[in-house]
Amino acid sequence: MSRVDLATAQLHGSLSDPVLRSIGFLNEIMSRHPDAISLAPGAPYLVHLDNADLGRYLTLGVEHLGKERGLDPTRARRLLVDYGPSRGLINDLVATSVRADLDVDVPADSIVITVGAQEGMLLALRAVMRADKDLLGVVTPCFPGILGAARLLDITVVTFPDHEFDGSVAPGGTTRGPNVDGIRAACQAARSEGRRLRALYLAPDYANPSGTRMSLVARQELLSLARDEDFLLFEDNAYGFTAPPGAELPALCALDPDSVVLIGTFSKVCLPGARVGYVVADQSLRADGAPAGRLADALATLKSMVTVNTSPICQAIVAGLLLDNNGSLAQLGAAQSAHYRANLAMLLAELDAQVDPSIGVSWNRPDGGFFVMMQLPVRADAALLDWCAQRYGVLWTPMDDFFPGGGGEYRIRLSCSYLPPERVAEGVGRLAAFVRDCAGAVPRSHTPPRSRI
Amino acid sequence: MSRVDLATAQLHGSLSDPVLRSIGFLNEIMSRHPDAISLAPGAPYLVHLDNADLGRYLTLGVEHLGKERGLDPTRARRLLVDYGPSRGLINDLVATSVRADLDVDVPADSIVITVGAQEGMLLALRAVMRADKDLLGVVTPCFPGILGAARLLDITVVTFPDHEFDGSVAPGGTTRGPNVDGIRAACQAARSEGRRLRALYLAPDYANPSGTRMSLVARQELLSLARDEDFLLFEDNAYGFTAPPGAELPALCALDPDSVVLIGTFSKVCLPGARVGYVVADQSLRADGAPAGRLADALATLKSMVTVNTSPICQAIVAGLLLDNNGSLAQLGAAQSAHYRANLAMLLAELDAQVDPSIGVSWNRPDGGFFVMMQLPVRADAALLDWCAQRYGVLWTPMDDFFPGGGGEYRIRLSCSYLPPERVAEGVGRLAAFVRDCAGAVPRSHTPPRSRI
Repeated sequence: MSRVDLATAQLHGSLSDPVLRSIGFLNEIMSRHPDAISLAPGAPYLVHLDNADLGRYLTLGVEHLGKERGLDPTRARRLLVDYGPSRGLINDLVATSVRADLDVDVPADSIVITVGAQEGMLLALRAVMRADKDLLGVVTPCFPGILGAARLLDITVVTFPDHEFDGSVAPGGTTRGPNVDGIRAACQAARSEGRRLRALYLAPDYANPSGTRMSLVARQELLSLARDEDFLLFEDNAYGFTAPPGAELPALCALDPDSVVLIGTFSKVCLPGARVGYVVADQSLRADGAPAGRLADALATLKSMVTVNTSPICQAIVAGLLLDNNGSLAQLGAAQSAHYRANLAMLLAELDAQVDPSIGVSWNRPDGGFFVMMQLPVRADAALLDWCAQRYGVLWTPMDDFFPGGGGEYRIRLSCSYLPPERVAEGVGRLAAFVRDCAGAVPRSHTPPRSRI
Repeated sequence: MSRVDLATAQLHGSLSDPVLRSIGFLNEIMSRHPDAISLAPGAPYLVHLDNADLGRYLTLGVEHLGKERGLDPTRARRLLVDYGPSRGLINDLVATSVRADLDVDVPADSIVITVGAQEGMLLALRAVMRADKDLLGVVTPCFPGILGAARLLDITVVTFPDHEFDGSVAPGGTTRGPNVDGIRAACQAARSEGRRLRALYLAPDYANPSGTRMSLVARQELLSLARDEDFLLFEDNAYGFTAPPGAELPALCALDPDSVVLIGTFSKVCLPGARVGYVVADQSLRADGAPAGRLADALATLKSMVTVNTSPICQAIVAGLLLDNNGSLAQLGAAQSAHYRANLAMLLAELDAQVDPSIGVSWNRPDGGFFVMMQLPVRADAALLDWCAQRYGVLWTPMDDFFPGGGGEYRIRLSCSYLPPERVAEGVGRLAAFVRDCAGAVPRSHTPPRSRI
């Protein structure tokens, strides 16, 4: 029995923003409908880890860390149980891995090890965004994690729609990304108000939730704009490893490490439970004209006030995983990527076979990533999802939270990542029945508010 | 070679606040003087973990988590490698432990598992502090972690000195804590400006860095004030376990869970490398007059945008440690506590034997915790520390960063926690020589600016 209750209106404003509930919402809906087939979560498929020996990875990792530092086994083991540097312990290994896997060639000092990509986003935002002065741009539809982190820090967000929405999908499934002219105009508008666009967040490779991928030309144009208008790009690379072999495109950070802060994670490729991610922030700092280290130093300083340091136990496990795979994620990623592409192809084939587009339903056709976007002829909100789960036994993700500037009301995200392959056909079958009944309920005069995907 | 450097003046203001560098500073000074005897770090003494079998704890923990949820071993192991709930996985065990160890009787739903106490502080601050409206009070000298977290969130801090500084140390080493009248006056002043004191952070048990402990009467007076003036207490309990057996005092949260958000950690008692802490936030929320869950729910929501979830691997290891100790930290803590108290007694005895207080040096006499505070006749800054390390081979912590309102310029913190017992006498011998030479360099007319400790 509480003496007095706290009014939610007196808590921080972020807590009343629906975007903060987006992760909890998915967990809640899945636990409410445990028997539904779930096309909802963006979580990776982890069956390959059922026989993983975490203890062996830990041993491999700690042996390496000790050897690197010239420590005897007892002192090496103390690295695991004690506090550690905010910057991280496995920065060398991560530098080797991003060099091998992403062609991003930076020194280990430019890397900070974080508690997943989410902490990396928070740190990157906090380092470069000054309250009331700096604006964060995001390409929409947009991963809610960056929106939530910005909301926590009271950062103002401006949105730039992905080009896919004007139908300009190029051959090979790539798109032109956000409209460069629109971003330039926003930079100028901000300046005229005494503010500035300081950073633009985007995921150029199979973005969550759109599944789209920016073409090479679009990447180059965007980097050129960032240099001209002096803003940073925050590149989220979580799904890059799912590109078809031979069809990889260079990371923005590989093309121009000065303009890009790369936010990476080991969660999608190998081990979400380790909560290990990283940020590459190679930018040079100067204070009163003199060199003052790198942006990564600033991130490490901030991290000492967020989580102090990433668990050395978890870092050692990831180190062991990397060492067990010749220091690269390529081998691990290739097996995983083949699984996801097979599931994705199956999902798209089943949609073609089972859903009739003439009823006002459309979807895009990514060639990698975890996600397909679908447009419905009806508003896709939490209530519709609940009804769909109860009546049809299939779950998907409403896309409202991905469109902070509006525009997601009729869209849903379908994820192929978490589902065992043998359930895809049945899942799409249930979805097809749901979609058919939705379309049947819509009057013929109804026009969806946006162009088809 | 960078295209263009980033000016530090254009980064977030927190990065130019010296408090953010306080943790990095200690690491740097220790790595610069690896052979010095270090009375500097507040890190725990971990020799007892040299033979700890982390793999066994992990197995114990995952078996428990699986059994609790009715999962077969394969599914239980998937809990370790996958994402998990933001709120945590081991909340039941932590609820049992705080009930046994701290007499804090709250449901598991009131607890959020965090990446150390540091993330707990950030989440608690973010949940209840609205920008520009709410003030955070801190009792000084103050742990820099809360100051840094507040700075990251652009929260305004007001300081309330600990009573120890007026010499009112009670029998048994306890003090009257912060001045209740001063806090009441600050609450009224804030209200007259349309703001309010929303929370007060303090560590009532052997605070870092002062080593002081609040008497029972002082705790009750402060709780009564918090109820009258409607602010929350953020209680940091990291060092409570070091109280002499039989001399424990109740946690603020045990006395009034409605007024207190308890921030706890497993780092000091058992395993910093796990980076597992917790927050107890049992306060009821209401929205438009209707019940809206607990404050812990809001913290879990915010956490989904900071670190998503605490590593299930680390949580399982801590679960195993707790289970191996009958679900309580008492047994583990007792052995550790005996070590720290023996070291502390030795430190105080050596100071008595080797340092002559008549030369203008004084120190306090805690009966628990990791820290002793010493006042020097000279300004104790980074330059003096560097000189002391080079010339005398001993390290301590300057206290400037612990006094955001000023007042720490002549003070140093001596830590007994990290040092092997056999090095205490030698460390104090070096410190005594340093202090003697400092005193000799001060003119007789010099008066230190504050009362003696």
